[in-house]
Amino acid sequence: MNKTLGIGIAGLGTVGQGFIKQLKSFKAGSKKAANIKVISVAVKNLRKKRNISTPSLPMTNNTMSLANNSEIDIVIELIGGSSGIAYKLVKKALSNGKHVITANKALLAMHGNELAKLAEKTNVSLNFEAAIAGGVPVVKAIRENLRFNSIRKVYGILNGTCNYILTKMENNEGSYQFVLNEAQKKGFAELDPTFDIQGIDAAHKITLLSCLAFDIPVNFKSTYVEGITKIDNYDFEYANELGYTIKLLSVATKSKDKIQQRVHTCFVKLSSEIAKVENETNAVVIEDSVIGRNMLIGPGAGAGPTGASVMSDLMDIVRETKNYPLGVSINKKKIMKIAKIEDLFFAYYLRISALDKAGVMAKISKALSKRKISIKSIIQKPSNKSSFAEIILITHKIKEALLISAIKQIKILPEVSSSVKFIRIEDSL
Amino acid sequence: MNKTLGIGIAGLGTVGQGFIKQLKSFKAGSKKAANIKVISVAVKNLRKKRNISTPSLPMTNNTMSLANNSEIDIVIELIGGSSGIAYKLVKKALSNGKHVITANKALLAMHGNELAKLAEKTNVSLNFEAAIAGGVPVVKAIRENLRFNSIRKVYGILNGTCNYILTKMENNEGSYQFVLNEAQKKGFAELDPTFDIQGIDAAHKITLLSCLAFDIPVNFKSTYVEGITKIDNYDFEYANELGYTIKLLSVATKSKDKIQQRVHTCFVKLSSEIAKVENETNAVVIEDSVIGRNMLIGPGAGAGPTGASVMSDLMDIVRETKNYPLGVSINKKKIMKIAKIEDLFFAYYLRISALDKAGVMAKISKALSKRKISIKSIIQKPSNKSSFAEIILITHKIKEALLISAIKQIKILPEVSSSVKFIRIEDSL
Repeated sequence: MNKTLGIGIAGLGTVGQGFIKQLKSFKAGSKKAANIKVISVAVKNLRKKRNISTPSLPMTNNTMSLANNSEIDIVIELIGGSSGIAYKLVKKALSNGKHVITANKALLAMHGNELAKLAEKTNVSLNFEAAIAGGVPVVKAIRENLRFNSIRKVYGILNGTCNYILTKMENNEGSYQFVLNEAQKKGFAELDPTFDIQGIDAAHKITLLSCLAFDIPVNFKSTYVEGITKIDNYDFEYANELGYTIKLLSVATKSKDKIQQRVHTCFVKLSSEIAKVENETNAVVIEDSVIGRNMLIGPGAGAGPTGASVMSDLMDIVRETKNYPLGVSINKKKIMKIAKIEDLFFAYYLRISALDKAGVMAKISKALSKRKISIKSIIQKPSNKSSFAEIILITHKIKEALLISAIKQIKILPEVSSSVKFIRIEDSL
Repeated sequence: MNKTLGIGIAGLGTVGQGFIKQLKSFKAGSKKAANIKVISVAVKNLRKKRNISTPSLPMTNNTMSLANNSEIDIVIELIGGSSGIAYKLVKKALSNGKHVITANKALLAMHGNELAKLAEKTNVSLNFEAAIAGGVPVVKAIRENLRFNSIRKVYGILNGTCNYILTKMENNEGSYQFVLNEAQKKGFAELDPTFDIQGIDAAHKITLLSCLAFDIPVNFKSTYVEGITKIDNYDFEYANELGYTIKLLSVATKSKDKIQQRVHTCFVKLSSEIAKVENETNAVVIEDSVIGRNMLIGPGAGAGPTGASVMSDLMDIVRETKNYPLGVSINKKKIMKIAKIEDLFFAYYLRISALDKAGVMAKISKALSKRKISIKSIIQKPSNKSSFAEIILITHKIKEALLISAIKQIKILPEVSSSVKFIRIEDSL
């Protein structure tokens, strides 16, 4: 533990600045951290104005130099992006026998298997606590502890931006678009929020958690992804009336022979713990057959939380903690089939806008009953469009393919407006 | 990692049986675990009937033999108790250079500094994930990660028995005594529940968390301890009326120059997350200046959860994870002053039973105002004792010593019944 470790930091955005700030205050107070030396900090633009003072830092704009600098033992990749320079840097650094710490979930979701294999080959650490749920120590908890307990389900709120927007909508603070704009102004949402609001960021994260929890390879392309863009304030109104709220949930489950990996909005019971996770907070629930249930709640983003997680990864390397990057050796990972969303069973919230005429309900009911979809409850409301009514149906559990087929039939009814919305219900949380 | 590790297990109660069960199912599925060999299982009474089949186990009633058996690399102490054989065994095992895993919070609360020092000296692990909050991986989270973030507060619900009893009382399922008896029948409370209901078990745990979080030595004797025995159903009624519930909280805080370590019942807001932690569930909140806030929730006891935590400790040893038992070296621990409860400031719930006569309230008010204790709200109720009234006061924040002094004066008022009850209010959770 007494050897000096040289670190190279690539990227000086929110996470990078948070980490450097913490490293400074930490070095002031700890002898152990005195053995950590910042050798190089790589940024794209040396002249960009930043919130932290950089003159004292060994800056470079040659990012790839970090992978080749013999004084650097640990490369900390905080650039982001699944390809390009981040990928090249991490690959090269691992090949050259340097430990890598990254906050880059996109990179790992796309190239995690390859990079883990490389890290195993050169016998170095590849740590990524900051990549999932920011300051919540969930990667370590699953990778080093909970994984041994036959985990059957990992789920949670993994995207703070979406949860912030949904919370504001639930509290009647405006429309989706208004709330998104406000979030952007406050810095809670990116200027280009696509990855967040489309569920892609959450999908990267749940793919990695699934890989860690179930000892399977990273398989992002099989993760089902839906974002929050189709939710409106009426959905919240109807949800509340029925005892639910709406969350963007990330879910991974394992049954005998199949994995589920999915991200989509869900109706969750107002009384559930997950419903109470508000604003930009993240939460992860781990259900297994030994412990039962663990829930971890904390901040999912921000300079402090992500910086702290990078620091935690660094201290694991300082302590010479040995871990396979993805829990077990990549050679021991078992490939399992990932279920298609159409083959899964859910109860559904269905929202149909239809002319307020006799016989419409009968036609809708017929389309459903033909496919053995039974209805648990119905609400009918006058629509904001005159002469239309909003029909809200809650179904019992049914295979999704059947619901999709029923919706197709309902959509072509002349009395029904073309948009028929459905949201899955997670009743068991 | 390929060396076979011999383990010796002392104690075959709930935790021991849970661990052995998990080890068996784990060995069936994992090559890594195949390198773990159970060398010896020590119990007091070889002929006692148990829930697991023992004929296949290498049983002994010579507990101390585990510390001397050269085939044993890791001693797993699951006997319990702060002194006696558990202490002797752990001490001897560490002295002999064997790793120790223990679920024994009493032992560590009493002898943690000495045992940690010994483990450091012989360069072995001393792991105790199962000792605090059962299946919740909070020891690892604080010891290996969160400790680096200038933690300022750790608090939570650390005794499942007490939380179970208080939850049942809140839900109007009976008196304290009735609920306790029911809990004993169901196995949620020990036949001798003293350590639980007096808050001692929770105090052991918060003392250890304080030591880990703040890098101070274990100091149990300075932890303030109060149990749940003085709470009655009326307290819940009044609490609810005022927007609160009652929890047995364990709290450790660090300010510039002082530590708080305390266990006592508190009024907590009904809307707080901690209020929603029900029945035997445990929860720990960690507040620091970098991440902000992390909350971990899960089962605090039971064969599965505690067995899983022992397994997690074992896997850390298999992976050769290096840790100082108490976070930092015992030589680096800073002794800090632990505040006396009388010197702390709280808002209070005060419950006074007094004759329903004119002038009583004036006398009570005078006793309070003389000490600058100001009142935030008052409820007056007819008492169950005729001609008595129950006066419920909520005070603003005041130094506890002043409240105690006021209560002394109130108690000797001729109109007041001798018992004046107060409960601290934690408004900031």
